[in-house]
Amino acid sequence: MRHILVIGIGAGDPEHLTLQAVKAIGRTDVFLVLGKPEERQDLIRLRRRMLDEHARPGHRLVEVPDAERDRGAPGYADAVEDWRRRRADLVAGLLDAHLGPGETGAFLVWGDPSLYDSVIAVVEEVLARRPGSFTHEVVPGISSVAALAARHRLTLTRVGRPLQITTGRRLAEGFPEDADDVVVMLDGRAAFAGIDPEGLDIHYGAYLGTEDEILVSGPLAETSERILRARTEARERKGWIMDTYLLRRRTDEPG
Amino acid sequence: MRHILVIGIGAGDPEHLTLQAVKAIGRTDVFLVLGKPEERQDLIRLRRRMLDEHARPGHRLVEVPDAERDRGAPGYADAVEDWRRRRADLVAGLLDAHLGPGETGAFLVWGDPSLYDSVIAVVEEVLARRPGSFTHEVVPGISSVAALAARHRLTLTRVGRPLQITTGRRLAEGFPEDADDVVVMLDGRAAFAGIDPEGLDIHYGAYLGTEDEILVSGPLAETSERILRARTEARERKGWIMDTYLLRRRTDEPG
Repeated sequence: MRHILVIGIGAGDPEHLTLQAVKAIGRTDVFLVLGKPEERQDLIRLRRRMLDEHARPGHRLVEVPDAERDRGAPGYADAVEDWRRRRADLVAGLLDAHLGPGETGAFLVWGDPSLYDSVIAVVEEVLARRPGSFTHEVVPGISSVAALAARHRLTLTRVGRPLQITTGRRLAEGFPEDADDVVVMLDGRAAFAGIDPEGLDIHYGAYLGTEDEILVSGPLAETSERILRARTEARERKGWIMDTYLLRRRTDEPG
Repeated sequence: MRHILVIGIGAGDPEHLTLQAVKAIGRTDVFLVLGKPEERQDLIRLRRRMLDEHARPGHRLVEVPDAERDRGAPGYADAVEDWRRRRADLVAGLLDAHLGPGETGAFLVWGDPSLYDSVIAVVEEVLARRPGSFTHEVVPGISSVAALAARHRLTLTRVGRPLQITTGRRLAEGFPEDADDVVVMLDGRAAFAGIDPEGLDIHYGAYLGTEDEILVSGPLAETSERILRARTEARERKGWIMDTYLLRRRTDEPG
C-alpha cells in the first residue's frame, strides 16, 4: 500500500518542526512539491535545508508547477474549487508517475495543514476518485497563529471568551460581531487599514520565526500607518510577504 | 538576569514537542510546576518522561500546590481574575525561593500557551509587579485544536470562511452566529449534547495523541449519544478527560 503524509513544517523557523514531523520526513521516499511560479527563494532554501537535515539518504524530490488559480473568475469559492480539482488531477498524475507500491510520499505544508491550506482536501479528492489506492496521515505543525502569539507573548483567548480566525477578505466586510479577539490570515490587501480602528489593538507579525521577522503592537489607530510602511518596504525588498495579526477589542474585563 | 520560559509541550503525544521546545527544555535549570490536587497521574508521568529524555542532568523540579479557584464565586471572569492574582503571588514566591541569578526557569504548558491557558498572564503579572526582574520567552506548541484536526485529517477552515474557537460554556448559550465552523474547548458539561443538532456535524477527540485516544465523527444528531457514553465511560475509568471538538454546519458550498 502506498502512503501519503501531509506534514506541517511550522511557520518559518526550522526549529518549529516537531519530533513527529522530523520522523515523518525521515521515512519519506518521495517529497512532492507543487511549485508556484512566484515561489519565494527563501522558502525554497528553508525547505531544502530541512530536507538536508532530516530526510533519509536516497530520498527523491519531485517538483511540478502547481495549477494556477483563475484570479479573474467571478466566484471566489468556485474559482478555488476549480483550482482544487485541477490540482487533484495534477496530484493523481504525480502519484502515478512517482510513487511506487509500498512507498511513502509527503507534502510539506508551511504552518499547520488545518488552517487555510488546501493540501488535505486535494489528497482526499484524489482518494475519493480511487478509493483504497493509498492511505494517508496528517502531522500537525506550528501554525503562524501560534507563532504570532508566542513571539508577542500573547494569550489569544481571553477568559471564557471566543477567538475568531478569519481572512483579510472577510475582515474588509467588517469586524466580526461575535468575537473581540480576531486573528486575520491571508490579508494581501491590508484590510486592517480599512476598518474603524476605534477601541482596537493590533499585534502584527510578518516572516515569523525568521531573521526578517517584523513585530508591531499597539492601538490600531496609531500603528496602522507604521505597519503599512513596514509591509510595503519588506515586500519590495523581499518580493513577497507572509504575515498575520491579532485584532483585540479593548475592554474593561480582565484579560 | 533571570529568564523564564513558557514552553508549549503539545497535546499529549511526546512527539508533538518541537525542536525548539526540546532545546528550551535542555537549557532549563528549574522546572516550575503548579500542581493540581486532582492532577492526572498519566499526565505527570508523561511530563516526567519528557524531562527524563530532554532535560539536562542536574536540572531541578519544584512543585507547589496550585492556588485553587473559587468555583462557588458568582462572576466567572472575576473568580478567574482573583485566582490569577493568587497564582501570581505563588509564582513570585517560587521565583524568589528557587530561581537564582542568571538561571532559567520553565513552565511546561500542555498544548499551546496561547489558547485558554493562564501561565503567560500570570508570568506577566509577576513581571508587572517587579519590572525588569526577569526576561521571558514563549515557545509555541501543538495545540489540541491542531492535534484534533490532524487526527481527523480535517481542514478546520473552509475556503474563505472564518473559524471560531470557543468554550463549552459559551456554546451552551447558542451556536455562534458568525461562523459555521466552531472548535469547542473546556467543555466539562458536554454542551454539544444540549444544542440543536440540525445541520451540524461533529468531529470529536479525547486524549488526543495518546494510547487512550477517542475519535468520533458524524452528524451531531446521530453521534451525540455515542460521544456522551464514550466520554462518561472514559472519565470513570481514567478519572479525568481532556477533549475538544469541531462543530461544522453542513452547507452546499465547496469545502
